[in-house]
Formats: sequence, C-alpha cells, structure tokens
Amino acid sequence: MRKAAVIGIGQLPVDEHWDLTLVEMAGEAVFAALEDAGRDRVEGLFVGNMLAGQLDKQTQLGAMITDWIGMRGIEAMTVEAACGSGGLAVRTGVMAVASGMMDSVLAVGLEKMTDASTSETTAALATAASANWEGVHGVTFVSLNALIMRRYMHKYGWKHEDFAPFSINAHANGARNPHARFQRPISRDAYLKARMISSPINLMDASPIGDGAAAVLIVPAEEVKGERDRSQITIEGSASATDSLAVHDRYDPLWLAAAEKSARQAYQGAGIGPGEVDFFEVHDAFSIMSALSLEACGFAERGQAPRLALDGEIRPEGRVPITTMGGLKARGHPVGATGVYQIVEVVQQLREQAGEAQIENARVGMAQNIGGSGATVITHILKAG
Amino acid sequence: MRKAAVIGIGQLPVDEHWDLTLVEMAGEAVFAALEDAGRDRVEGLFVGNMLAGQLDKQTQLGAMITDWIGMRGIEAMTVEAACGSGGLAVRTGVMAVASGMMDSVLAVGLEKMTDASTSETTAALATAASANWEGVHGVTFVSLNALIMRRYMHKYGWKHEDFAPFSINAHANGARNPHARFQRPISRDAYLKARMISSPINLMDASPIGDGAAAVLIVPAEEVKGERDRSQITIEGSASATDSLAVHDRYDPLWLAAAEKSARQAYQGAGIGPGEVDFFEVHDAFSIMSALSLEACGFAERGQAPRLALDGEIRPEGRVPITTMGGLKARGHPVGATGVYQIVEVVQQLREQAGEAQIENARVGMAQNIGGSGATVITHILKAG
Repeated sequence: MRKAAVIGIGQLPVDEHWDLTLVEMAGEAVFAALEDAGRDRVEGLFVGNMLAGQLDKQTQLGAMITDWIGMRGIEAMTVEAACGSGGLAVRTGVMAVASGMMDSVLAVGLEKMTDASTSETTAALATAASANWEGVHGVTFVSLNALIMRRYMHKYGWKHEDFAPFSINAHANGARNPHARFQRPISRDAYLKARMISSPINLMDASPIGDGAAAVLIVPAEEVKGERDRSQITIEGSASATDSLAVHDRYDPLWLAAAEKSARQAYQGAGIGPGEVDFFEVHDAFSIMSALSLEACGFAERGQAPRLALDGEIRPEGRVPITTMGGLKARGHPVGATGVYQIVEVVQQLREQAGEAQIENARVGMAQNIGGSGATVITHILKAG
Repeated sequence: MRKAAVIGIGQLPVDEHWDLTLVEMAGEAVFAALEDAGRDRVEGLFVGNMLAGQLDKQTQLGAMITDWIGMRGIEAMTVEAACGSGGLAVRTGVMAVASGMMDSVLAVGLEKMTDASTSETTAALATAASANWEGVHGVTFVSLNALIMRRYMHKYGWKHEDFAPFSINAHANGARNPHARFQRPISRDAYLKARMISSPINLMDASPIGDGAAAVLIVPAEEVKGERDRSQITIEGSASATDSLAVHDRYDPLWLAAAEKSARQAYQGAGIGPGEVDFFEVHDAFSIMSALSLEACGFAERGQAPRLALDGEIRPEGRVPITTMGGLKARGHPVGATGVYQIVEVVQQLREQAGEAQIENARVGMAQNIGGSGATVITHILKAG
C-alpha cells in the first residue's frame, strides 16, 4: 500500500460568495492548490459535498468541476456522508493513490449554502439526521445537539459557562486566519450573553454556515522524498468509521464510538498515540461536539473535556491546541467542504505557513471530521517530514 | 494492485416499494448478497445513490445501512455522479480492494423514487444536467435527450421507427427476468403508436423510474482461486471518465467521449477489445443512449448503431447482445441503483444463473453506466474464470 503526501493546498475564504457560482468557487480553490503544488494536471478528482442537489439543484459535481478546471475527461465523483463529506473526499483520494490506480488526485470540499433561505438550509441540514427517527419529529440539527449537550451537562455536572473556552479559543484563533468567516475575538461576557438558539446551545456554541471551497493535491509519498523538511507533508493515518444514525439508538449518546474507532485506526496507521499529536482540528460544529471529540480521541477522560478547556490546554500554547485556524466556529462550516478545510489548515500549520495562528513546533497534526451527530467520523493524521 | 472478484450478488425487483423504507430496501439486497457469498461481514460499504437527499430527506446513507445490516462501525460512504452513482459505488469498491485497505466490501445501489410526486422527481432528475446552462432554461432530462436524438436522426438519416429494435429487445429480455419492472414483450406496433413524451422520444424510448436496491460483494481475486469455473467472477476492467456537463459544450454532441475513454481503459485493463465481449449491459435510459454507447465502445461505426439493431445483432442470439435482463427500459431505472443492477446481471449471466434470459457461452460481460447525458461514464468488464 503506497503512503500518500499532500503537495498542494488551496482555499477560498468562508463567506457569502453571492458573486461566485458553485463551480467558480471550486475553481478558485483548485487553481490555488495546483499553483501551490506546481502541477497543472491530476488523474482523478473527489468532491466532498452534501447539499448541492438540494440547495443548488446540481448533482454530478465531479464532471462539472473537471471541465471547468481544464481537465475534462479525468475520473471524478462526489462522496457524501453529510458534514463528513470533505474528510471522505480526502480519504477516497488517499485510497486512490494507495491502490496505485492514480498517481495524483485532488480532493475538493465544496458547499454553497447562503443563496438559499434559512428555512431551506435548515431543512436540508436536517437530512444529516435520521429522517425516520429524528427528522420526522421536527428535530433540527441544532436541537439534536442541544439534547446531547443538556444530557452531558446533567450527567457530568457542568454548567453552560464551562463551555465558554471552546468558543473563545476558536474566535481568538479565527482572528488570526484571513480565510475565516469571523475574524474578531469574543469575550467571555459575549459568550454568556449570546442569544439562545436551542437551549442550552446559544449563538456562540453553534458554528455558522457559509459558502466555501478548499482543495488538497495528493500524490504518492515517494514523490516528495528528498525535498526540504517542512514541505514534505505525509498522511500517516487515515480512517473512517460509522455509528448509528439516530442518537437514541447509540449504546451511549454521550460517547462518539465512531470517533473513537476512526481515531484508534488513524493512531495505529501513524504508529503514535494522542500524546504525540501537536495540534488537533476538531469538528466543533457545536461546543459539545468539541468536548465529545476530545474525549473519544483520548485527549480527556470521559466527561472531562470542559476541564481541559477551562485549564487553557486547548489554546495555541496548551497541551492540545484545537481549532487552531478558528475551527468550524470561527473559520465557518460550509458543511461538505469543512473536512477539506481542516486538512488544508493542518498542512498550513505543519509547513509553518499559518501566519499569526502558527502553533510552535507543529510536527504532527490531526483532523477529525464528523458527519451528522457522530454517525460517520473520519480521522487523519499528517506529519511534517 | 490487487485484482477484485465478485462473490455475492443481491437485488430487489425494481418496482413501487411503498411498503419498504429506504434502509429496508438496501437490507433486502445486502442480505441476499451476503447469503449468496456465504459471508456475514464486510469491511466497507459504498452506496450509489443520487436522490435520497432531495426526495427522501435523508443523506448519510452509509451509516444508516451499516447499522441496519448489523455492521455498525464499519467504514461507509455515498458516492454520486447522478445516474452513474451505482457504477461508481462498484468502482470505489474495486479501488478499496485494490488498495489493500479492505479485504471485503459491499457496493450497494439504492434509489427510492416513487414516493415523491412526478413533478418533484422530474425536477430532481434534472439536477443531473447543468443547472446553470440547461436546467435554467427549463430543460428536463427527457427533453435534453430528445434534442440529442433529433440531431442524430437528422445527421445520420434515421427515422424514429429505426430505433424500435432497442425497445423491443429490452422488453423481450425483461419478460424473462423476474426482477424486471416490466415483464411483457412489446410489439413493433406498440412502439410506433406509443404516446409522445418529448418528440422524437416516445414512451417506449424512455426508461421508467422505480424503487430499487442491488448489491455486490467484492473481495480480492486471489480469494476465489481454486473454486469451480463459473463461480469465479473477476473484475478485469474498471474505469471512469468525464465529459462536459452541458451537452452544447461538447466537441460533438453525438459522441460520448467519456464512454469511449472509459471503455478504452476498461478494454486495456482486461486486455481485450470489443470483439471479445460476449454481451453488453448498456445504459439505455433512452433509445438514443443505447445507440451512442454502442458506437463509443466500438460495437458500431459512428451513426450506424441503429443498423446493428435492425440487423438483430443486439438480441440474445446476435453478435452483441445488449440489455440482456431488460436493461433500464424494462428492468427499470432506479437511477443511483442502476449501475449496481448492471453488475448483478452481468454476474448472473457469467454464472449461468440468468434463467430464461441466459446468453449462451457468456464468458466476458461488459457494463456501462452513464451519469447525466454522458458527463460521467463508468465501464466494467467481468469474466467467468
């Protein structure tokens, strides 16, 4: 099995891109990644997207993009597992390279959400939950996460204010990322006084939607041998796992079994444990998801992730810096694109190209992308050579 | 690169399955494939689906299915390129096995279309075309194919009646397939007098939608070595290619460049040419697509596929039997599932399990699955050992 490396990254700022079509957005990210890699062609393209069929009336994005970027003819497809689609695009690219079938691929995360009305978007996002067991009751995606957070607070004795550090850290980091949707730090007071969305989730617990496109160019690792240190970024661990779609059907609704499983497999692939991870891009769609992800991946004991956050260990200078470029909360969450943004940001950190958001001595970075409320989880571990 | 083999197949008859949910349909096909293969687990699952997000308000089908079939936790994702989704599910399964990352996978084609209204379904299917260049003008998928057929008839001098053999052959073959949506042969008269849908496409030129689920279980070919002849079905060629999404933007709107490219690559993989293919499951969404596919794959000269059909060469006893189990026209076209049905049927023929529809001396079978009006095309060549 051939190991894979990332030699090019590109991203569009997460924003309301009313002036760009879906394919123009993808093009911006792809052209940046190609230029970064010094390549002009690839052999395959995998698109992570969740909502284009529903919100943009467009399926078959692969063919659309390959034509637009001047590569008409090459193999292309969309891969989807709700908000985990981007991570799966990267994972499928890794698989294509590992198989020997392709020597260079693009993984593109793409989502255009702000042209639709809020109610359309909310309904479309709810398809990530179980239509038969959750959607049918009118449960939106926010309220589902609110139920999980409420239960977590009850079981482990945390107050809402104990989750403040997740949001404050994300916005502080996003303020240092020119591609972030929100680039202003927030105060503890702003967190506490934010408008309630679905109790206990307030506006500052929830990540914003947005339009976004990100791309990574993946090749066999043997091609980057001999290059200088920091430019040699290899994918050491890549894994994906599933859990039940409906939250009520899990053995423990407060434990992300798929996050644990995919992280374990990624650690095995990389031959490391959580202690050797220098920073971790968590899927902070909601504060509670950051907590559950940190616990499932072994960075905190069960029920104790808020303690890690309160102790400052998730900040850039802490033991496990998370959401180093703002995360979903501040960089923004263009759902199907998010998993690719995470990998782009990991590469920025490992190359020491993260600017003001740079983590010191970042050699090993991990990213975890979550579909739905934890039903599909993809974990990647990357390393600077 | 490891070669792949198919050791299990399962399918639900294409029908209006109002009594089954999406996941129950998938389960029927998967359980049949597992029983057929004598296995009870796989390591990964790839779902080919186009419309569940739009029509069934459900994304993230992979996690939903793995849980239902008792394999909660294993890797799963949806792959999509409109009506080519099923073929891509098989192709991704082949890639997963080739990479060495997985030793057994299920490719599942799944589509539930008849619970929605006709107008909803028509609008959803139109997302396979270019939203910006075609859909915006109100072009439905049928009318797009009608434009192509009209131009073909004009350029090559064929009359509408010359396409009759495609439909007659499909329905004659479907009558011998208990899983087909339509199981009655049709006469030439019925073809000529059928209701006009979008001139020159009449009801008998167009394939019917339907609810369907099909599954194939794929393992490394080395695992089936030593078994008896007809049960050893290997995937000798697997390829996918793209063309421009919008028809007007092609170099020649009457030439399926992606079909030609993916067929050429599949032939190369299998080390054969069209002359060695014993039967060919074409993507006969419309009569015109059968013609274009046959030409792109080298079975007829440009503009001459209707001649092949009129000479009877596409019938079971002909030189290139096509749609041997009824094709999209008679077996039915549950869009994202179709590509997997094709592979299931190829395996039935190669194993000599096709019953009354059996092609004599079927050793090499080919299937071509088309997304949109030819923007994504997937070709597979399978062989009985």
